[in-house]
Amino acid sequence: MTTVLQQAADARVAAIDLAAATRTEKDRALELMADRLVERSADIVAANEVDVTNARASGVSESMIDRLTLTPARVEAMAQGLRELAALPDPVGDVVRGSTLANGLELRQVRVPFGVVGIIYEGRPNVTADAAGICLKSGNAALLRGSGSALSSNAAIVSVLRKAVADSRLPADTIQLLDATTRDSVKELMRARGLVDVLIPRGGASLIRTVVEESTVPVIETGVGNCHVYVDEHADLEKALAVTVNSKTQRLSTCNTAESLLVHAAIADRFLPLVLPALFEAGVTVHGDPQVVAYDSQVVPATEEDWGTEYLSADLAVAIVDSLDDALDHIRQYGTGHTEAIVSESVTATRRFTARVDAAAVMVNASTRFTDGGEFGFGAEIGISTQKLHARGPMGLPELTSTKYIVTGNGHIRR
Amino acid sequence: MTTVLQQAADARVAAIDLAAATRTEKDRALELMADRLVERSADIVAANEVDVTNARASGVSESMIDRLTLTPARVEAMAQGLRELAALPDPVGDVVRGSTLANGLELRQVRVPFGVVGIIYEGRPNVTADAAGICLKSGNAALLRGSGSALSSNAAIVSVLRKAVADSRLPADTIQLLDATTRDSVKELMRARGLVDVLIPRGGASLIRTVVEESTVPVIETGVGNCHVYVDEHADLEKALAVTVNSKTQRLSTCNTAESLLVHAAIADRFLPLVLPALFEAGVTVHGDPQVVAYDSQVVPATEEDWGTEYLSADLAVAIVDSLDDALDHIRQYGTGHTEAIVSESVTATRRFTARVDAAAVMVNASTRFTDGGEFGFGAEIGISTQKLHARGPMGLPELTSTKYIVTGNGHIRR
Repeated sequence: MTTVLQQAADARVAAIDLAAATRTEKDRALELMADRLVERSADIVAANEVDVTNARASGVSESMIDRLTLTPARVEAMAQGLRELAALPDPVGDVVRGSTLANGLELRQVRVPFGVVGIIYEGRPNVTADAAGICLKSGNAALLRGSGSALSSNAAIVSVLRKAVADSRLPADTIQLLDATTRDSVKELMRARGLVDVLIPRGGASLIRTVVEESTVPVIETGVGNCHVYVDEHADLEKALAVTVNSKTQRLSTCNTAESLLVHAAIADRFLPLVLPALFEAGVTVHGDPQVVAYDSQVVPATEEDWGTEYLSADLAVAIVDSLDDALDHIRQYGTGHTEAIVSESVTATRRFTARVDAAAVMVNASTRFTDGGEFGFGAEIGISTQKLHARGPMGLPELTSTKYIVTGNGHIRR
Repeated sequence: MTTVLQQAADARVAAIDLAAATRTEKDRALELMADRLVERSADIVAANEVDVTNARASGVSESMIDRLTLTPARVEAMAQGLRELAALPDPVGDVVRGSTLANGLELRQVRVPFGVVGIIYEGRPNVTADAAGICLKSGNAALLRGSGSALSSNAAIVSVLRKAVADSRLPADTIQLLDATTRDSVKELMRARGLVDVLIPRGGASLIRTVVEESTVPVIETGVGNCHVYVDEHADLEKALAVTVNSKTQRLSTCNTAESLLVHAAIADRFLPLVLPALFEAGVTVHGDPQVVAYDSQVVPATEEDWGTEYLSADLAVAIVDSLDDALDHIRQYGTGHTEAIVSESVTATRRFTARVDAAAVMVNASTRFTDGGEFGFGAEIGISTQKLHARGPMGLPELTSTKYIVTGNGHIRR
């Protein structure tokens, strides 16, 4: 048995006791994990310095270095995240549906943990504590496959967390770190069907595609966001301006950032002279279709590729559409099913848009940036699902659970 | 583009209008489908005779012939199934969750269809009408890949259904039959990610395993059932007897039929002399562990293989266990996560069993045979899921939907 499969088997055993743990027991573990991270902050920062030194030596960009770097304040923030998880309600045991059948059988559909959750992620080492905490609170054992660049940091964090879990009398194997020095650990994790219940890849499009294509373990896809703002002919121009600029510029590199603006032809003459200068002012490069180019010499002509691009930068593709249905067709062709927004005062238009757009979230007169577990009030978020199976949109704690039917009778038999 | 991919693309187009169809429109289509099946009953039965003749010529067993055969009464039953679907509530549009956020944004999580559902099935041609109806009611376009042995029957049924759908002003491509003369259509369906939203394989273990291993389209597994009845030391013997015999013999070849009986050692001396004669009387072959063999000369010694076998026949594996936890270990090792039953009067024992058994359904003092959409009151059932993602246990209409967040503001932007 390979190391990964052995770790998965150990996680399965740990998951049995964890699934039966009470909220009190789990919250005590989360609080202890938080306390210990703070206590051991100096050790964690020292371990992180090894990773940062290695990253610098291999010429990694300063923005990547910043993402990798831990400070006492960042460790404190990790701890605070765990304390916030402790304060959230426990999804496990929630009765989703229940009834008494005609024959007297008592039927309850109850939330239960998945069991073992594999998380593949890149970048910041704070995801390690975050993912471990979310899995623990939802009663799942976590197999964490972090970034090779954060080896030393992740090892230090997981070592502290495992000790805290064990000291709180829950199984240490609830949290395990997989080998990040080789791609083999990802491959083995993807084939561990029966040992691992669900895989969540968090990272770039190519990682997600590989996992989706090759995994026999069920996957929850946290996909890319090519999000659109559609400004309808019945839009309030002021709201349209605010929503467009905010959707594009409030933060550039997130999946819920708008990448395209579609403007109804009937309102283009009034809206484009408003929005284009505002976008330029905010430092945005506008890639426009031929009609949009005609409005302003600063507009760069858009190529076919622009419509399908998730820029994650200060770029915005802008097109004029002849109707709401043309906007829907455009979104259907180029959208990724993440977040689509309409700005309109027309009930008829917004009703048609919300009914016909196929996306995890549809915004009416609101910024695309609101698609977020925190903004939705979920308290914790493990990612934003762009698939339709199991979970769609921001995933909170309940999305990390399955259900089980418990049926109670008194010697009932079927006739 | 291959035929299957073209059909999938046509289904996607049809799915857009279908997703926006009202319950009234869908129910009218279902009623018309039912009426037309009855009107065209003679043609359907004639088409079926071709399949039956071919099956006879190739030496298929009489029980398979029976499953394949359509009669006017069976066509009427198919129609009746569609009418019952029309009478069920529409899951589409249900608000699963909703709130008004602190900033005034109105958040609603609404049920929406998946879009395009692929169903791969074997055996009875009545599944064709059943699956098409369930998909239509839940707003999904159906790609039906039936059995090669039912080619002519399925073509006749789908032709009638498509005409009825078109006449009711919904898109005919809502229902499409895939080529069942080649395995290539299954392969193409499994790789049609982006065109097909979910695949449901219904059939033998090897078909399901192939689809799970090879599909890049998300799969809902309707798996095998190696179901156990555990008779606890605190069992009421009469209830234990009734539940055991019913779980095993009420119907032999279903996935919720019990295949193993586990008896607590403390009660074996009283229970086995009761249950063994009753099982023999019902024609059951008992495969027992060495302790069970000692109780009756008719008991066949069980091999290791027996514990993991879904017999689907009049066979039952019987073991004596020393404790409830030993029963849980046995079930963990050999169970398939379908249905597990405990017979016990002890609250402590049933609480531990229901909390720790990892299965879609857990029965307390009730027959395993109750795990069924009809018995649970769901009205319609597309299968019983043994996976944990998205749907677990009997799948009714809501399990054929996803959700979408609709967020309404008044020019809201994120700060």
